Amino acid sequence: MSHIDPGSSGIGPDRFRERLARARDAAEAAGVQALLLGVGPELEWLTGYQAKPLERLTLLVVAADADPAIVVPRLEVAAAEAAPAIGAGHVRVVPWQETDDPMDAVWELLRAEPGARLAVSDTLRASFVLGLQGTFPGAAFELAGGVVGMLRRVKDADEVALLRLAAHAADRAVLGLAAGRLVGRTEADIAAEVRTRLVDEGHDSASFWIVASGPRSASPHHEPDDRVVRAGEPLLLDIGGRRAGYSSDITRTLWITGGDDALGPDATFRTIHELVRAANAAGRDAVRPGVAAQDVDRAARDVIEAAGHGPDFFHRLGHGIGLEGHEDPYLVAGNEAPLLVGDAFSIEPGVYLEGRYGVRIEDIVVCAEDGADVLNEATRELLVVSGV
Amino acid sequence: MSHIDPGSSGIGPDRFRERLARARDAAEAAGVQALLLGVGPELEWLTGYQAKPLERLTLLVVAADADPAIVVPRLEVAAAEAAPAIGAGHVRVVPWQETDDPMDAVWELLRAEPGARLAVSDTLRASFVLGLQGTFPGAAFELAGGVVGMLRRVKDADEVALLRLAAHAADRAVLGLAAGRLVGRTEADIAAEVRTRLVDEGHDSASFWIVASGPRSASPHHEPDDRVVRAGEPLLLDIGGRRAGYSSDITRTLWITGGDDALGPDATFRTIHELVRAANAAGRDAVRPGVAAQDVDRAARDVIEAAGHGPDFFHRLGHGIGLEGHEDPYLVAGNEAPLLVGDAFSIEPGVYLEGRYGVRIEDIVVCAEDGADVLNEATRELLVVSGV
Repeated sequence: MSHIDPGSSGIGPDRFRERLARARDAAEAAGVQALLLGVGPELEWLTGYQAKPLERLTLLVVAADADPAIVVPRLEVAAAEAAPAIGAGHVRVVPWQETDDPMDAVWELLRAEPGARLAVSDTLRASFVLGLQGTFPGAAFELAGGVVGMLRRVKDADEVALLRLAAHAADRAVLGLAAGRLVGRTEADIAAEVRTRLVDEGHDSASFWIVASGPRSASPHHEPDDRVVRAGEPLLLDIGGRRAGYSSDITRTLWITGGDDALGPDATFRTIHELVRAANAAGRDAVRPGVAAQDVDRAARDVIEAAGHGPDFFHRLGHGIGLEGHEDPYLVAGNEAPLLVGDAFSIEPGVYLEGRYGVRIEDIVVCAEDGADVLNEATRELLVVSGV
Repeated sequence: MSHIDPGSSGIGPDRFRERLARARDAAEAAGVQALLLGVGPELEWLTGYQAKPLERLTLLVVAADADPAIVVPRLEVAAAEAAPAIGAGHVRVVPWQETDDPMDAVWELLRAEPGARLAVSDTLRASFVLGLQGTFPGAAFELAGGVVGMLRRVKDADEVALLRLAAHAADRAVLGLAAGRLVGRTEADIAAEVRTRLVDEGHDSASFWIVASGPRSASPHHEPDDRVVRAGEPLLLDIGGRRAGYSSDITRTLWITGGDDALGPDATFRTIHELVRAANAAGRDAVRPGVAAQDVDRAARDVIEAAGHGPDFFHRLGHGIGLEGHEDPYLVAGNEAPLLVGDAFSIEPGVYLEGRYGVRIEDIVVCAEDGADVLNEATRELLVVSGV
């Protein structure tokens, strides 16, 4: 059961207490003395603390044999205490002063012996990793993702509700863009509108804004620049933002006529759009608990390969999504891990004809008992728009 | 000599080639086999590549005995080649495919033996640090900051020119805010105006926007929220953005009257504002090549301590600034490193009276032969504004 309603700003302290207990149990079960989690998605998932990445150390210590504590710079104590789990007292705050060495505080909390296993958050910066390795010489370091990654990977009902709200906000942003003026504007100008629309439609912030017109649509990670969008060409929009910490990510590829029917999509474009749409559907249809992640990639890729466009689809089918824009599970050849109920990820096949144009259609789905719960609702039909 | 003019977007390829050569020389002189630099300021400083932080590995390899190479995900090759040093061919591009292990490519480039010293960028994420440690077992890992930090710390004329342009844009943003309506608006609403003004005045993006009204000004890292700004109280603005990669950072503390002279600043506020202004001046006056960083902190702190407010100034005096908002050198007790010509840093004393209000005045300065070159030009006098 989700406790999130559309007006909600996030997740309550009881849910975080439960997550902290599960993380501690997972550390104990794995034989890891402690999880050492810096600013990043693990910290946010366990406490609700969206901390700024700083050169000053912030470190959540979840030890197998002690209550959770967070080492925080003196100046950030108020911000940390505003986080649900910390404000509710589920995590003890250990402040350090400007002239202290914060590694001393970590040492006092753990006193790990040589041979102890310590798990650091996957995005902890090297200066802190090497600092911890120097503080606990002889300890064995590994990634916290190996211990708590599976907990965080499987989304609970609150998280699915937040991902759905973000997805719907992204749907509205894309459709609003498609309905507006596009011809004669630069990609950069449209990208600025993307950022505004993402926020206006319900995100707290915009995260990315790929606006790729004409031949640029053949480059999957194109940066919008001062190219002017014309009638008689496609426009690929791959955009997303964050809402209460959770990410959206949608791609649609339009065709712009400028109001002139003679400038409609050519036969090749119609063919590859239909092909990508069929691959997207095949990917979604393949989603089911227990299916290997790589088999979903394979199901979509088969459609494109059968039409002879295999080499034109040269990236993985999708990535997990949650507090990070890209996270486990990755839908890519070689990933044999089975999908689980609660996995959230993108399905985003593409066909790119270098020098000409490309098409990608991306949706976010959640793996449910009976298959894919598709969060995005914007049409996947080819949108032929006037753009004037 | 700077080659930057106000319309310029950045630094040219020759400067990057020179920096790459200096980094290679520094690695060789330090006895380090290679610098392994992920997405972040070191990469940007050496190549001009403002890469996105991704879960896919991007790694610049600057070996002491080979030409520079960058391991890049296939999808990011076009973005990497758009960077000045990479586009100019000063760095060889080594792409990896979705189903490759990118650590294999790093191994092929280096084949480092046990005992080799390898230096990783300070912000490289733990997943890559541990991956490299697994790829080169027995190698000794250290931070690249120890090898090239000094090179990057000392700003050349192009960098000082870009920092000055950013500082002037921030000056205009602060003064524009001070001249506008403030009373009756929420902090969050004013923060949105901060973001717009920072960009309108010449930044590529806004980085932070502390808007702290009334008693909130006593909390140095306050997050703007829905508190409504009133007449008869102070407003602390600590804001900054990035222009061509380089950061601005300015703080001014205003007093708002609402147009009613009876609601002007009280005697205590005037006293602490004057005290902080004197401390800021003492800090700037203490800047000179060869002076220890901690002695500049001390010079400013002495002024505040002599007035009995020592405990109310509980953070360091300043931080370096450049491609990172916070970087070396830090002006803090314990940092005995001497200042160098070309160091750029903040001078930002404050006095915070818990529950009442606080004042901070911050400028960016560059250490020049004859003392501080002060980049910010906005007045440091107490601005008493109507805000209506």
